[in-house]
Amino acid sequence: MTEDTIAAVATALGEGSIAVVRVSGPEAVERIAPLFRSKTDLREAKTHTVNYGWIVDPADGAVVDEVLVTVMKGPRSFTAEDVVEISTHGGIVAVQSVLELVLRSGVRMAEPGEFTKRAFLNGRIDLAQAEAVIDLIRSKSNRAFQVARRQSEGALSKKIVPLRRQLIELLAHVEVNIDYPEHDVAEMTASAITETCGKVLEAVRGLLKTAAEGKILREGIVTAIVGRPNAGKSSLLNALAQDNKAIVTDIPGTTRDIVEESVSLSGIPLRLLDTAGIRETSDVVERIGVERSRGALNEADLILLVLNHNEPLHEDERRLLEELEGRPVIVVVNKIDLPGRLELDEVRSRFEAERIVEISAKEGTGIEALERAVSKLFFGGSIESEDLTYVSNARHISLLHGAAKSLQDAMGAAEEGIPIDLIQIDIAAAWEQLGEIVGDSVGESLLDQIFSQFCLGK
Amino acid sequence: MTEDTIAAVATALGEGSIAVVRVSGPEAVERIAPLFRSKTDLREAKTHTVNYGWIVDPADGAVVDEVLVTVMKGPRSFTAEDVVEISTHGGIVAVQSVLELVLRSGVRMAEPGEFTKRAFLNGRIDLAQAEAVIDLIRSKSNRAFQVARRQSEGALSKKIVPLRRQLIELLAHVEVNIDYPEHDVAEMTASAITETCGKVLEAVRGLLKTAAEGKILREGIVTAIVGRPNAGKSSLLNALAQDNKAIVTDIPGTTRDIVEESVSLSGIPLRLLDTAGIRETSDVVERIGVERSRGALNEADLILLVLNHNEPLHEDERRLLEELEGRPVIVVVNKIDLPGRLELDEVRSRFEAERIVEISAKEGTGIEALERAVSKLFFGGSIESEDLTYVSNARHISLLHGAAKSLQDAMGAAEEGIPIDLIQIDIAAAWEQLGEIVGDSVGESLLDQIFSQFCLGK
Repeated sequence: MTEDTIAAVATALGEGSIAVVRVSGPEAVERIAPLFRSKTDLREAKTHTVNYGWIVDPADGAVVDEVLVTVMKGPRSFTAEDVVEISTHGGIVAVQSVLELVLRSGVRMAEPGEFTKRAFLNGRIDLAQAEAVIDLIRSKSNRAFQVARRQSEGALSKKIVPLRRQLIELLAHVEVNIDYPEHDVAEMTASAITETCGKVLEAVRGLLKTAAEGKILREGIVTAIVGRPNAGKSSLLNALAQDNKAIVTDIPGTTRDIVEESVSLSGIPLRLLDTAGIRETSDVVERIGVERSRGALNEADLILLVLNHNEPLHEDERRLLEELEGRPVIVVVNKIDLPGRLELDEVRSRFEAERIVEISAKEGTGIEALERAVSKLFFGGSIESEDLTYVSNARHISLLHGAAKSLQDAMGAAEEGIPIDLIQIDIAAAWEQLGEIVGDSVGESLLDQIFSQFCLGK
Repeated sequence: MTEDTIAAVATALGEGSIAVVRVSGPEAVERIAPLFRSKTDLREAKTHTVNYGWIVDPADGAVVDEVLVTVMKGPRSFTAEDVVEISTHGGIVAVQSVLELVLRSGVRMAEPGEFTKRAFLNGRIDLAQAEAVIDLIRSKSNRAFQVARRQSEGALSKKIVPLRRQLIELLAHVEVNIDYPEHDVAEMTASAITETCGKVLEAVRGLLKTAAEGKILREGIVTAIVGRPNAGKSSLLNALAQDNKAIVTDIPGTTRDIVEESVSLSGIPLRLLDTAGIRETSDVVERIGVERSRGALNEADLILLVLNHNEPLHEDERRLLEELEGRPVIVVVNKIDLPGRLELDEVRSRFEAERIVEISAKEGTGIEALERAVSKLFFGGSIESEDLTYVSNARHISLLHGAAKSLQDAMGAAEEGIPIDLIQIDIAAAWEQLGEIVGDSVGESLLDQIFSQFCLGK
């Protein structure tokens, strides 16, 4: 159980109407009460109530901000400790000034992820749930968010825990029999090992299969839009953005200065590379521009090659088609609202029909077909699956690989008739590796490393 | 009284632990209750309580996010209407998904500033207070924030209201006497006009005097740091930033891509222009770079010319000194921790002693002296004043100028013996112009214009 009281800003920093300073720990109420001028003494406020008043500097009584203060007494709080949340005016100054005063009152600045770490240490959530919290915040599409939310509520843990139970039962069985090295007992034990490890291994492999898709959902498909200047790349971008306009336009920083924009294509996040360089490849011959374009193309997981339905194939496009053959390309034939002057034979000779999509970015037609094509390319069309458990965390993936290897070793050893007490070591290793996913048998320094990836205030 | 119910995101968008959707209006509770799965039916929740549960899509029961929902019943709320605040997971997806669902439930998207507009329309705050809310959010320094906060709590209104009362009493006095055109009554009235209008005019001029400083506090001093590459411009910037590190580094968007950074120099906000161009003026002869530098220099309210204490004056610096004479320059002699090789005579011949400050950015010495010099240059050293009422809003300034003119006209007319019923028009005009500051006699379209400057969710 932690002893000290911590604080941090819990909302994103920037222009908004309100911002929140979160305080957690045994002294949360006691430390904030002297800073809070109100009708209500915070020490007497009931749990889960909102109290109106002012944060004042106790040194000179100067008002710092007009606030709402929420009290949530442990264990009914995010950290399972006493939590006080101070809702200040938005912007930067108010919340920083209030935080400063809180820190001066003897509350310590929280480390990144420390609130979530406390929720874990206090037993409210396990480690896989805690790790999902950061994915929740960083998720760029609704599907990625729902995957993270389900994991934060224990979906992955619910799959891991029964596997560990099977292994511990197997270990108990092995332990009991280890002192009876009669031949038939050993044989029975070996077959139990093969059977149980086989089942667990299958489940672990099933989880690992979701890893590639999980990574895409979490990090997005790096996408380059290429094509000639008049093909309609910008209007395609706008049409894609329309779907999720707020996400594109409201993220601070997704301006022209930043290299990437994120859009969500029916739940699949696309990270669009700034292809300004590519856009001008055919016009400007500057070496730098061309090199940047090449870099973006090589880096991309997905290339959307935009052609103009209204114009014959251009020599530049012919070269691009040739160059991109064999890459993960979807050919987007744009402007189908205009008369067709594009001959598709050459395109069809290089790309399968399902990789060619006809759209009108202007009229918004064909976007769904494009979504289906992307979905098919990355998820074999199976993105609609209802089971939202995807393993996407690199630490989890590595532990699952480790567990799979230990299980295979155990099974191989059992088949070869290697002494059971040696096999036991492999089974125990698999059990421990799975345990590390949910946070059993995890050392202090690993915990620090995991939680330090978090943003402040969580 | 407004009839419909509105919603918007109230926190800044970006990475944070929590985000808040604010809903206000007569149907706030009724509309959100069906979306909220919890132990508590929101319709039965007490005012100012926080309720734990999930936002679910009523169409299919799918969970959208785990949330805390706060209910604040009018008139004890920001808008004086029923307010429901939904605290979702941070990041972008959760809050957008919840907002979408709220909007689908028949709640309308709020216009920018609409929550504050409702607080005004419902009589909870006056117009000058409402306008200060946007300054609160945008303020870049603690002093600017405190000025805005005091105005949001009615500090300016408290100065305006008594002035209007004096004018309305004068108008009543004039009205009573207007039907008695005897000579001595007219004379008495004229002297009352001169006296009252004189007092009010003096007060209005006093407020106008704060305007220049108010504008600086609100918008910041546009500052260019210039000097030779080795003079220590970057370390000066870092030393200034140190003071207020969080504000410099944590604003999303204040990256190298953005032209400006904000630092706060003992309460005075400086908007530092990106002088990358200037930095290289002496090295690179590119026309573009030089032109950008010239532009930044011309635009600046304040120029910090950094010289190196450890080196003799360079020809480039001599040229800069000459060029900048007569401009609002502070000469910052940096690196006083190193042996002195700089001869200051030439500097002293062009700039007063109080404009020359010796510092060591590396050791952090002299920064306070620099603060004093800046303060003196912009506030005549009087920034420490306790009266935090500054008029900084352009609309207010223009109305105060208008009122001053009307009052002068009235006084001039009274002296010239112009008929009282004509003078009455000027006095009434002054009364009305002052009234527009606090929002009496303000038309609907002006209101729309004022509140549309707000960010969403306020």
